[in-house]
Amino acid sequence: MRQAGRSLPEYRRARRNESILDAVRVPALAAELTMQPVRRYGVDAAILFSDIVVPLVAIGVDIDVVAGRGPVVEAPFRGPDDLARLRPLEPDSDTPYVIETVEILVKELSVPLIGFAGAPFTLASYLIEGGPSRSFSKVKKLMLEEPGTFDRLLDRLADLSLASLRSQVRSGAAAAQLFDSWAGILSPHHYERHVLPASAKVLSGLADLGVPRIHFGVGSGELLGMMAAAGADVVGVDWRTSLADARERVGPAVAVQGNLDPAACLAPWTAVQAEVSRVLDDAGHLPGHVFNLGHGVLPETDPGILAEVVRMVHEAPPAPPRP
Amino acid sequence: MRQAGRSLPEYRRARRNESILDAVRVPALAAELTMQPVRRYGVDAAILFSDIVVPLVAIGVDIDVVAGRGPVVEAPFRGPDDLARLRPLEPDSDTPYVIETVEILVKELSVPLIGFAGAPFTLASYLIEGGPSRSFSKVKKLMLEEPGTFDRLLDRLADLSLASLRSQVRSGAAAAQLFDSWAGILSPHHYERHVLPASAKVLSGLADLGVPRIHFGVGSGELLGMMAAAGADVVGVDWRTSLADARERVGPAVAVQGNLDPAACLAPWTAVQAEVSRVLDDAGHLPGHVFNLGHGVLPETDPGILAEVVRMVHEAPPAPPRP
Repeated sequence: MRQAGRSLPEYRRARRNESILDAVRVPALAAELTMQPVRRYGVDAAILFSDIVVPLVAIGVDIDVVAGRGPVVEAPFRGPDDLARLRPLEPDSDTPYVIETVEILVKELSVPLIGFAGAPFTLASYLIEGGPSRSFSKVKKLMLEEPGTFDRLLDRLADLSLASLRSQVRSGAAAAQLFDSWAGILSPHHYERHVLPASAKVLSGLADLGVPRIHFGVGSGELLGMMAAAGADVVGVDWRTSLADARERVGPAVAVQGNLDPAACLAPWTAVQAEVSRVLDDAGHLPGHVFNLGHGVLPETDPGILAEVVRMVHEAPPAPPRP
Repeated sequence: MRQAGRSLPEYRRARRNESILDAVRVPALAAELTMQPVRRYGVDAAILFSDIVVPLVAIGVDIDVVAGRGPVVEAPFRGPDDLARLRPLEPDSDTPYVIETVEILVKELSVPLIGFAGAPFTLASYLIEGGPSRSFSKVKKLMLEEPGTFDRLLDRLADLSLASLRSQVRSGAAAAQLFDSWAGILSPHHYERHVLPASAKVLSGLADLGVPRIHFGVGSGELLGMMAAAGADVVGVDWRTSLADARERVGPAVAVQGNLDPAACLAPWTAVQAEVSRVLDDAGHLPGHVFNLGHGVLPETDPGILAEVVRMVHEAPPAPPRP
C-alpha cells in the first residue's frame, strides 16, 4: 500500500525536510523511499514512491503538496477556459526522473514494481476544489452545470494518466495501479455517466502492455462492479465492504485487493491478529485475493505491527486450487 | 433534512451570533428555527432544531460546537475512567428547554415534528476523537484495544439517546430519528459486533411509544440491512447507494429515505430537475420511500432551488397501490 514508508524512521531520516514533490524529482531518493518498506516488511511487491499530482505539476499546473493537507492548487479550475492549462504529457521530457526512478528500481528490487497514477476523477477533484474538501461541492457542481467541460477535462486527465502509466510500464514496472481515491463520493449514476468512460480509457489503453491493472478506490463499495468493468484485473476493496460482497460485485474474472482497515493496525497485536485472520477467512484462502490494507498506512502505525501482519499473511496456509 | 435552515437569510437573521448550543437553550428561538424551513419550503415534516451533543452537554461534558468544525471536546475520552463522566440524562431537569421547544412546536406546526438524537457510535466518535477526524483512528483504536470499555461507553450513550428521544416523543414529537452520521466508517463486522447492540437498544426502547423510528447514516450503504434490523421503520440512504440496492438490503418491511445528493442542489434548476426525476423514478413512485436529501443542506444552497425541489416532489404522480 502507498505511504507504507511514512511510518518508518528510515523514511523520515531519508526524506528529511524535502517536500514530497522535490523527493520525487530525485531518482536515487525516490528509489530508496520505494524500497524501504520492501526491505523492512518483506512485502511481495513495491509501489513507486510518487504522488498523483506529479504529471500535473510536470505539465505546469501550479500545485503544492502541503503536509497534513494534501495537494493545494494555486488557481483552481473553474470552467472551459481552464482546459487550455492541460497540455499532453511527454513522459520522456516532462518526467524523466520518474523513468529514471523506475529503471533504478527494476535493477535493485527482487519483487515486482507497481507503477501508479491518479485516476481522472480524483485528479479533477483536486484541480476543481483547489484543496481538501468535505462535500466536494465544487467538483459536483461543475459536473452537473457544465457536463461537457467536465467530460472534456476528465478525458484530458485520462490521457495524462495513461501517458504516465504507459511510460512507467515501458520502463519496467510490472503492474499499473490507477488510484481513484475520491470516486466513492459519487452516486453510481454519476460515476457511470461522467467517470467510468475516462477511467476505462486509461485502463483499456494499457491492455496491449500485458501487465495486471489494479483499480483502487476507497469508500467505493457500490462502484466495484463498474470499477471492474472499466478494465481492471484487480479491484481495491476497503474495509467497509465485505470481501464476499466485493467478489460478487466484480464478478469471477477479477481479483480483489484489501481489505484490512489501516486503523486496525493501531491496536495491540492480539487484536490486529484477529483482524488479519478475519480478512484471510473472508478471502477463503482462494486465489483472486491480494492481501492489503484498504487504504494508506496511518503515520502513527507501529512498524513492528505491520511486519507481524506481513509475516502472518505469508505463513497462512496456501490457497487451495480453485474449485 | 437537518440544517435545512442554515442556507436561509431568515435563519441567519434569527440566530445572529448565538452559538448553536445557546440557541437550543432558548425555546422560542429553537422553535422559530425549526419552523423556518417548513414555512419557506412547505415540507411535510419538521425536524427539531438541536445538535446531537445537546444531551452530553446537559450532563456536564465540556463540548463546544465550533462553526465550520463541529463539536470539539475539551477533554477527550481515553479509557475506562472516563465512563464516570457520563451520568444518566434526566430530561425534565437536564434539558427542560428541549421539552419546552417541542411543546411550542406541537402547538404551532401544521406538520408532524421529528425528534432527534445522535446514535451511540457517532456520539462516542466525538467524545474519543475530541474533534473532527479523517481516519477516526482513536475511536477505532479504543474499540479494538479496550472492547469492554468501548461497549460500556456505547451502552451508556444508548441510554442517553433513548432518554432524550423518549422525552421528545412524550412531549409530542410524532417520530424519532437516530443520527449515526459516522457509522459508515466501520467495517460491517465491527458495526455488527460493537455498534448494532447499542443502536438496537435505543430503537427497541422506543417501540412501546408507537412512533415511526428513522435510522439515519451517511456512507453507510453496506450497513443498511443491519441498520434496519436494529429496529428501524425507515432507513436513511445517501446518494452513494441506489434506492434499488437499498430496498433489497433493508427488506420489504422497512421504508427508505433519501437519496438526493445535497451537492446536486448547487446546480442550475434544469440539472437539479433531472436529479430529482431520477430519485423519483428509482423510488418507483411506490409507498415506502420518503423523498429527502442524502445528507444535510449545504450552506451555499440557493433556497429557491430547494423550494422548487419540494414543489416538484409534491407534484409528482401519486404512488400507485403496492402490488
